Amino acid sequence: MHPRDPIGPTPGEPVAGLDTPHLLVDLDAVDANLRVMFAGGRRYGVDVRVHFKSLKCTGLARYVAAAGADGFACAKLNEAEALADAGLTDVLLANQAVGPLKTRRAARLAARANLIVCADDPDNVRELAGAARGAGSTVGVLVEVDIGMNRCGVPAGPAVVELARLVASLPGLRFRGLQGYDGHLQMLPDAAERRAKSLAGCEQLVAARRLVEAAGLPVEIVTGGGTGTWDVVASVPGVTEIQPGSFVVMDAAYHQVRPEFACALSVRAGVVSRRPGAYVLDAGTKAISRDFGTPAVKARPGDRVVRTNEEHTIVEAAEPGPRPGEAVEVWPAHCCATVNLHRTLVAVRGGRVEAVWPIECSGRYD
Amino acid sequence: MHPRDPIGPTPGEPVAGLDTPHLLVDLDAVDANLRVMFAGGRRYGVDVRVHFKSLKCTGLARYVAAAGADGFACAKLNEAEALADAGLTDVLLANQAVGPLKTRRAARLAARANLIVCADDPDNVRELAGAARGAGSTVGVLVEVDIGMNRCGVPAGPAVVELARLVASLPGLRFRGLQGYDGHLQMLPDAAERRAKSLAGCEQLVAARRLVEAAGLPVEIVTGGGTGTWDVVASVPGVTEIQPGSFVVMDAAYHQVRPEFACALSVRAGVVSRRPGAYVLDAGTKAISRDFGTPAVKARPGDRVVRTNEEHTIVEAAEPGPRPGEAVEVWPAHCCATVNLHRTLVAVRGGRVEAVWPIECSGRYD
Repeated sequence: MHPRDPIGPTPGEPVAGLDTPHLLVDLDAVDANLRVMFAGGRRYGVDVRVHFKSLKCTGLARYVAAAGADGFACAKLNEAEALADAGLTDVLLANQAVGPLKTRRAARLAARANLIVCADDPDNVRELAGAARGAGSTVGVLVEVDIGMNRCGVPAGPAVVELARLVASLPGLRFRGLQGYDGHLQMLPDAAERRAKSLAGCEQLVAARRLVEAAGLPVEIVTGGGTGTWDVVASVPGVTEIQPGSFVVMDAAYHQVRPEFACALSVRAGVVSRRPGAYVLDAGTKAISRDFGTPAVKARPGDRVVRTNEEHTIVEAAEPGPRPGEAVEVWPAHCCATVNLHRTLVAVRGGRVEAVWPIECSGRYD
Repeated sequence: MHPRDPIGPTPGEPVAGLDTPHLLVDLDAVDANLRVMFAGGRRYGVDVRVHFKSLKCTGLARYVAAAGADGFACAKLNEAEALADAGLTDVLLANQAVGPLKTRRAARLAARANLIVCADDPDNVRELAGAARGAGSTVGVLVEVDIGMNRCGVPAGPAVVELARLVASLPGLRFRGLQGYDGHLQMLPDAAERRAKSLAGCEQLVAARRLVEAAGLPVEIVTGGGTGTWDVVASVPGVTEIQPGSFVVMDAAYHQVRPEFACALSVRAGVVSRRPGAYVLDAGTKAISRDFGTPAVKARPGDRVVRTNEEHTIVEAAEPGPRPGEAVEVWPAHCCATVNLHRTLVAVRGGRVEAVWPIECSGRYD
């Protein structure tokens, strides 16, 4: 807990006695989500590299690792450093490490972790190699391929081979394979459209793999996919791993497109005011991200969130609604963004606090 | 800085040498904003109680206090506790403290700070009085009046007098006055409409003041307003203070309706990838809140943010745009929500780091 918090949760304490608001994760629901995903990985014969950007909490990451994760992906170097500090050293930085400071940090981290980073630029690759030689480490590199998201990555085709050759030629670097991420497809509501577009992207990625192998470069890793496309990407021959993250704790929006995973993440908030037919909660958009929509009230099917302000959420409810001083739980619409809004994650099971985990990487983006 | 950050900013360091991304505040711009607001408070004869929910950082709050703030408002008890820890003890909790835990915390805090809280419920008032007697403290109370936001507060009218009488009758509490907040008007683009609706709300608030005084209860404080309505509320006879917060650091959205305040808050982000006509920054919606819109690129008038993802911002720019490894600054569209997304605020002046302040209250809502 934050050092100043006078009444932090303690293991064994009933959830009903907690101050409000708090971010909760239901470990029984997490267990069920991990079983589904890891069984799927085995069924398709791919590794499941869990994306830490959705967790940002090494306590939860260790819990996920103990359940059988094949490693972790992360979005930021500080997340990779936190994972290594926690003894989770099989880490893919699923983005670029650019500039003298970031390449030096990556090279230093590679001396104590099995670090792989993505690259899409020759100058960046040369800078990374120089940093690795300076640190006396070897940095694994995936060439990122743009398979339709039009963000980072090189176009599928000869550019992939050129960059892979450059990586393989430079002391300090080790070419490991390819990444292609279909982030723009994750939330497509139409499952058939999501599947078709994801398969089309995977075809570009696997075609790039064949080009690189034809150039004589071994490809160990071909990685991509997220919670929204996990089974589609996993089913493609030539893909070796998937990198979903949200499935661990889930949210109300993802649950609409991926009902096989349960909503484990909730914000428990207190009622601070009420009027006929409505009540006001002490958590708003600062604590419950609304970038993917409004939250859903848990275990009160008649209640509906009608307005979210910075510090308040207004809920319409049939009388008698909860009274000031009572608490309700809401499922956020976006888990990754909501976890990032908190410093502490309270792990609960059967209505009691099982663990209290700092969210070390919330509020940091370096 | 976060204890694990290997390369945190240090005072005197040039901003150009900082790792990315970082949240920056330009102190020259803050100085200008404070001069405008505090001069306005003196002109209208009202106190300026600066709202800490927009700062969440006691280093910046101390800077604002030294410049002449008449006290602080805050949204959450943990913010009030942080202010008191920093020696800033004139604090209004501009919300309700509800339930046994919150009322006990408020009562404990009142023993070491001049704490005022808002109330809109008789049961809550009795609970707060009991907690104050238990702590041997006196808690100041404002009756919150709903002047049109339809969130918390009692309707302007007899209910205000009843609740004020109850507060005044209970040992442990001290009735201080009334709050009416027009949060729903702050961003109205039409200045004339904003002014007219704000004046209508203030009339309800001042009418409630007259009712309470007619009942024989002295009213010391009548508070309300925000950055969007500050001068309108300050101009109303019977209002004693205003509680703006965003004006200190400002943002791109508020600057549209309040150009007298300068954008002092920026996120300095690094270019991690580029393609013809566009570049990708290493900060996205996790670091730059988009709940009030997309950010604006600072000092690059031709550049336009065209997409924001969780960890990336995509900017269209005329060639030659910035190259990977270079950095640019963006002005967030919403300062309160963006400050809450960071743990560290880098105070800069003239291109150098002047101070590095922890944002103690980001990621906490209790």
